[in-house]
Amino acid sequence: MGGSNSSPRRGKGTVVTESDLPVVEMIRPRWGNPATPGSLPPVAEQALGALGVTGPRPAVAPDQIEVALSVLTDDARRAIADIVGAEHITVDDVERIQHTRGYSTPDLLKMRAGDVTDAPDAVVFPGTHEEVVAVLGACAEHRVAVVPFAGGTSVVGGLVAARDGFNGVVALDVRRLDRLVAVDEVSRTATLEAGMRGPLAEQLLNAQGLTLGHFPQSFEGASIGGYAAARSAGQSSAGYGRFDEMVVGLVVATPRGTLTMGTAPKSAAGPDLRQLVLGSEGAFGVITAVTVEVHPVPAVRRFEGWHFASFADGAAALRTLVQDGPLPTVVRLSDEVETAVNLADPTGATESAGGCLVITGYEGEATDVANRREMASAVLTARGGTALGEQPGEAWRAGRYRGPYLRDPLLDAGVLVETLETVTFWSNLDTVKAAVTSALTESLGGQGTPPLVMCHISHVYHSGASLYFTVITAQGDDPIAQWQQAKSRANAAIRSAGAAITHHHGVGTDHRDTFAEEIGPIAVEVLAAVKNTLDPVGILNPGVLIGTAH
Amino acid sequence: MGGSNSSPRRGKGTVVTESDLPVVEMIRPRWGNPATPGSLPPVAEQALGALGVTGPRPAVAPDQIEVALSVLTDDARRAIADIVGAEHITVDDVERIQHTRGYSTPDLLKMRAGDVTDAPDAVVFPGTHEEVVAVLGACAEHRVAVVPFAGGTSVVGGLVAARDGFNGVVALDVRRLDRLVAVDEVSRTATLEAGMRGPLAEQLLNAQGLTLGHFPQSFEGASIGGYAAARSAGQSSAGYGRFDEMVVGLVVATPRGTLTMGTAPKSAAGPDLRQLVLGSEGAFGVITAVTVEVHPVPAVRRFEGWHFASFADGAAALRTLVQDGPLPTVVRLSDEVETAVNLADPTGATESAGGCLVITGYEGEATDVANRREMASAVLTARGGTALGEQPGEAWRAGRYRGPYLRDPLLDAGVLVETLETVTFWSNLDTVKAAVTSALTESLGGQGTPPLVMCHISHVYHSGASLYFTVITAQGDDPIAQWQQAKSRANAAIRSAGAAITHHHGVGTDHRDTFAEEIGPIAVEVLAAVKNTLDPVGILNPGVLIGTAH
Repeated sequence: MGGSNSSPRRGKGTVVTESDLPVVEMIRPRWGNPATPGSLPPVAEQALGALGVTGPRPAVAPDQIEVALSVLTDDARRAIADIVGAEHITVDDVERIQHTRGYSTPDLLKMRAGDVTDAPDAVVFPGTHEEVVAVLGACAEHRVAVVPFAGGTSVVGGLVAARDGFNGVVALDVRRLDRLVAVDEVSRTATLEAGMRGPLAEQLLNAQGLTLGHFPQSFEGASIGGYAAARSAGQSSAGYGRFDEMVVGLVVATPRGTLTMGTAPKSAAGPDLRQLVLGSEGAFGVITAVTVEVHPVPAVRRFEGWHFASFADGAAALRTLVQDGPLPTVVRLSDEVETAVNLADPTGATESAGGCLVITGYEGEATDVANRREMASAVLTARGGTALGEQPGEAWRAGRYRGPYLRDPLLDAGVLVETLETVTFWSNLDTVKAAVTSALTESLGGQGTPPLVMCHISHVYHSGASLYFTVITAQGDDPIAQWQQAKSRANAAIRSAGAAITHHHGVGTDHRDTFAEEIGPIAVEVLAAVKNTLDPVGILNPGVLIGTAH
Repeated sequence: MGGSNSSPRRGKGTVVTESDLPVVEMIRPRWGNPATPGSLPPVAEQALGALGVTGPRPAVAPDQIEVALSVLTDDARRAIADIVGAEHITVDDVERIQHTRGYSTPDLLKMRAGDVTDAPDAVVFPGTHEEVVAVLGACAEHRVAVVPFAGGTSVVGGLVAARDGFNGVVALDVRRLDRLVAVDEVSRTATLEAGMRGPLAEQLLNAQGLTLGHFPQSFEGASIGGYAAARSAGQSSAGYGRFDEMVVGLVVATPRGTLTMGTAPKSAAGPDLRQLVLGSEGAFGVITAVTVEVHPVPAVRRFEGWHFASFADGAAALRTLVQDGPLPTVVRLSDEVETAVNLADPTGATESAGGCLVITGYEGEATDVANRREMASAVLTARGGTALGEQPGEAWRAGRYRGPYLRDPLLDAGVLVETLETVTFWSNLDTVKAAVTSALTESLGGQGTPPLVMCHISHVYHSGASLYFTVITAQGDDPIAQWQQAKSRANAAIRSAGAAITHHHGVGTDHRDTFAEEIGPIAVEVLAAVKNTLDPVGILNPGVLIGTAH
């Protein structure tokens, strides 16, 4: 992939900024930059016994994994090769394995066990929007299912297509669509192609004094198209908005042709169809470019920690900030367990303090940052917070993309670790948190593997907030089944408590049935009607978002 | 309708606030509170000659208007009466006339000429959501078209249903659905039924210390359901957001049953289907209740005027405020013509200054207002603005709902007056403004009635702004045809310049064809597929939003 960063720009100060991160190719099943693999800190090694971990669970070596023969017909392969060029379609085993599933823990466990039964039959790398449209047409004609593939970082089974009724599955990898198409400095927008990774977007925008401000934990791997298709929310969403709020325009390839959306920032010209494509997860079309709001590179970035006596106190403080202002650029609250386990602060600075850690971050012009920080600090203090200074904030900032790197050595060591998330209204927050925690604790405890369940708030809204859970326990004999039971119980708890099945991970196949319950059968029919209009043969990500029976 | 305000609460200071406005029933064809009719100021009387107005054009007296016999079958009428009660369905001529069309100038001209050919065959007043669902079922069974009717203030032909293929048309008036259903003080949301008018909503919310903050010019007449169905934007949108941004939940009655939306403020659980119903203008279903964000009643409201040398200077200043902050609660910019004609300032205080008038308004806690005002004032000054103090701001605020009252006496006097609006990106603003102004000037000038074309910005976004045009000229022999030609030319200019066909007036029937060009044929098919799923017989507002051929 083009644009890899051999000479990274240095950020201000000593902290690595987003544009310093290189564009890397992750190597499944492991997460992140292969040059900086994760390793367990000594404290984690010591804790393995307490979790009841019985011993290491090494992964099958990649070169020992066997993938089934491709079933793609020669006719279909030729038709696609005629469009993209023979060098841009491959049935190579390594590429097929590298396009198998995403990065959920079950995905990794399957890959670690050598199971690549969901491998695509071929991988296609179109170079233009027009090629994407043509490939979709050819796949419809040949009844080949298509998995749109951008960063490949789905954690909800968004890259696993149903095969029934299709002559094979191809992964349509948009990595060659990685151009910065246009910048409108007056309107403060930029048009980016879908295959561009987060680090490259920041490098190219930063060079023009601009930033997207979208920094999800998957930043190193995820792509612009995936941000849009799956309604990504970055860690700075309080300041820069969710990705679906940043998007003003979309170009979408469908088997029926091209959809171009976004005549104006906002209008009353009918329903906002952008919001129908955002979150459609490749089931309605392939997003090939987005036009997004951009912002000046902040002159100042300041991150701080605050201590609160309890999660309830911290949540009340965050609610005051978002409802009455001023809102920092980043706000996070770890619950008592997460604060104690200290994932939010790997340096250990707050470990012995008890209570809960809040991280606040401010980005912008110096005066703006100073004003917002002063006012927000007054709110946090009035709400019972104690300032911890910049150290916990900078520690969080320095490690903000490192969390997922820990999962691989934990899985190696025999630990089961996974995350799940939801969002609800403020008045329902405590109920949802307790219900999900109980479901996970009871399910895993009942299986003889009592878990540690941690939770944080990382995204706040006027009327509600996200809840992000991290679960750690010992792997049982069948860790996939073990987790599936726990996840199923958590999903049911989320539904019963009236929260949304996902805040930013998306629906994929893992959440599809619960999502259908959440929106109800008539709304599912609406989605199916939209899909059927844009994709009459049903080749696009079959089984993702909605079932294939419709 | 219940809740009329016989004992209005007094606002702070001497300015009438929104909750002081009574809930009134407008009497077509005239706008607004019948107790406070509009009259022309002496300066306008003097200007009639300059416009080339040839003489008064009195309206046909209401009691002289004849409405055709209702074609609703007895079977259909009985089926509906069985659901809502015989007293809640009427074929009374006065009610049918009062539910005929909306408040566009062509609508008024038709009514003033005694043309009520679009009158519904009956008016139905359901009392509950369940009754609405049942009425839609009965109408589908009897093939009766349904015009969902809330405030009835559409200015884009949103209340005129195609009759072809239907056994008559009923207006489904939701005025009896006017309850404040729930307030969630923690999440700062309120659930309001669709028939509640703006003034009643403010009265009931204010009594709990809350405000919706949604104040469109149609405030006295429009209803919650219409705000949602037509993507309303209020004059305080910079501070409180557009209505589609305030909505977190919707209850929608369709011929297929009930759709309930809004599990959480924001999520990644698929496309945001709320944004598919918002702007659907009654074509997909009848919105019966919405859950919206609410805010504390502001302790302080301060409105001010600023003078800028030109529209370009003023627009650049507004752009800086919205892109770099801080954003006032209200920001408006009148162009040179509008400033001179002084519609923005009926007191005449800025008339002789030339240039352009900017209005800024700040609402909130005293400290917040003081801080934002100080910082925004520094931006406006740095951008070339001259402070005019509170007088122009308070004058605008006092007259903010009076503009439409002027139209009736102007039409009486032989003047043609109408408004239209659009929205585009900042970099395209000047192009669009010039193109629309030219189209209107050339079309009306070519017809021998040179117009005065005024423009203002009243809604700003990170990447763009609205443009609102007011056109005044002498009525020709056939003022409806005269305006239709001008409007058609303006629509074409908006399309050619790449702007949206409407910012907040909506699509209705007037903008339907241009809207179809704007979104393209595949997107129109998507909307038709959604409609066909929710309304298989096609009874809901046929011909509104999308054509009936689909």
